[in-house]
Amino acid sequence: MIESESQIRVRYVETDAMGIVHHSNYISWLELARIEMMDKLGLPYIEIEKKDALMPVLEVHIKYISPAYFDDRLSIKVFVKECPKVRLKVEYKIVRENSILATAETLHAFINREGKVIRPPIAFLECMKEHFQY
Amino acid sequence: MIESESQIRVRYVETDAMGIVHHSNYISWLELARIEMMDKLGLPYIEIEKKDALMPVLEVHIKYISPAYFDDRLSIKVFVKECPKVRLKVEYKIVRENSILATAETLHAFINREGKVIRPPIAFLECMKEHFQY
Amino acid sequence: MIESESQIRVRYVETDAMGIVHHSNYISWLELARIEMMDKLGLPYIEIEKKDALMPVLEVHIKYISPAYFDDRLSIKVFVKECPKVRLKVEYKIVRENSILATAETLHAFINREGKVIRPPIAFLECMKEHFQY
Amino acid sequence: MIESESQIRVRYVETDAMGIVHHSNYISWLELARIEMMDKLGLPYIEIEKKDALMPVLEVHIKYISPAYFDDRLSIKVFVKECPKVRLKVEYKIVRENSILATAETLHAFINREGKVIRPPIAFLECMKEHFQY
Repeated sequence: MIESESQIRVRYVETDAMGIVHHSNYISWLELARIEMMDKLGLPYIEIEKKDALMPVLEVHIKYISPAYFDDRLSIKVFVKECPKVRLKVEYKIVRENSILATAETLHAFINREGKVIRPPIAFLECMKEHFQY
Repeated sequence: MIESESQIRVRYVETDAMGIVHHSNYISWLELARIEMMDKLGLPYIEIEKKDALMPVLEVHIKYISPAYFDDRLSIKVFVKECPKVRLKVEYKIVRENSILATAETLHAFINREGKVIRPPIAFLECMKEHFQY
Repeated sequence: MIESESQIRVRYVETDAMGIVHHSNYISWLELARIEMMDKLGLPYIEIEKKDALMPVLEVHIKYISPAYFDDRLSIKVFVKECPKVRLKVEYKIVRENSILATAETLHAFINREGKVIRPPIAFLECMKEHFQY
Repeated sequence: MIESESQIRVRYVETDAMGIVHHSNYISWLELARIEMMDKLGLPYIEIEKKDALMPVLEVHIKYISPAYFDDRLSIKVFVKECPKVRLKVEYKIVRENSILATAETLHAFINREGKVIRPPIAFLECMKEHFQY
């Protein structure tokens, strides 16, 4: 299993007229935490794009349990539980202190600049295998 | 069943460096289409908030099938297929001409200004019943 | 002088915890109104980009006079008062009924895909001249 | 003079189809840097709002000199050069390594929850005086 954790502080612009964080912003936090996970794996996403492999989002599923507020310090915990072959499934917990504010899952594929599905870059697959070997 | 349809034109700010619409923006389009559905039902969301009932999002599930681009004219088709009791489930299709770009589901509850779950406003329940009577 | 006017309805996602529209969203409204102005001039921005001319923003200046709220119907009035040569200056008024909520100015240049400043496309210059001829 | 500096990393969601950061996002970075400046002054903005004083933005002026890209690490340098009486003027430089990408100014007032202009909170004025004493 791959695990990673990112810290964010809620920006004012992310709040809405309910006085809480607008639910659309969680999607950008998942992205940010995914990118920091790739950094930690030694596979910075920017390097993957430089090799003309893009990782679009195929699916997002978020459950909102409890609201987040302006200035909250949150942890985005990221988990990859299955060794990806063609698609990568990522799970998340958004946490404030000991409360889970939201859980989420995203699904990704690799495509080239023309939008065609491609096999994941070798470096990516090898890195993944290492983490799921035992 | 309740059906509604909203038209949007993709804004430049909604695109990202992949040259397509960033996936987070679809969530705001669902919201916009839901609000227009409530208008058509004679239940403008702004009136519901004035009565101190808020309709937070409990869950979002989106499947991205094909990308949207700057300046695209899209239809957001909205469906409520089951008469809501406490929670409201809404389904969506995001369509460009005859292609479905994404499908989605959102789940909502009603809460008061203190964040406590409340029963939906009577006007809402009656309107819903009318649409599901036969 | 070139004049144009765009209509928008404030989205929930555009509000913030002050209960008003977050000031950053006005920038996207200016962009939207600029794009609709170009449509009316017969110079859709998407066609300009297809010819590898981009119109980045060099400067934005906004004065916020009175807040906008969720669900407000606003007019974005756009004015080009001087025939552009290399740079295009655009002025705006954001209006709700008879109140001016904000005034703004943006300044633009034309660049190519490599980021180099270029002369505006001929079609653009000719269209501009027509509007400033007398 | 008051000086502060904030670090940000450009998020993917902040980019646009030109492959650069969309100009609207700079406004949120200014806000974030302003909030961190207030933290360092011992006047966290969230505490000011708890006392029912809000600090809306009256004016924003940004000059974009050079584009920012996904994954850039940027410094937002913040300056208050005049002791504020009723209005607060803040200046900014957005910097990547040794290049200035943008300069900006924002102007702020204090209002109460009803939207009426109020005098700045005493704690704010005293803190400001300390920094401008000599």
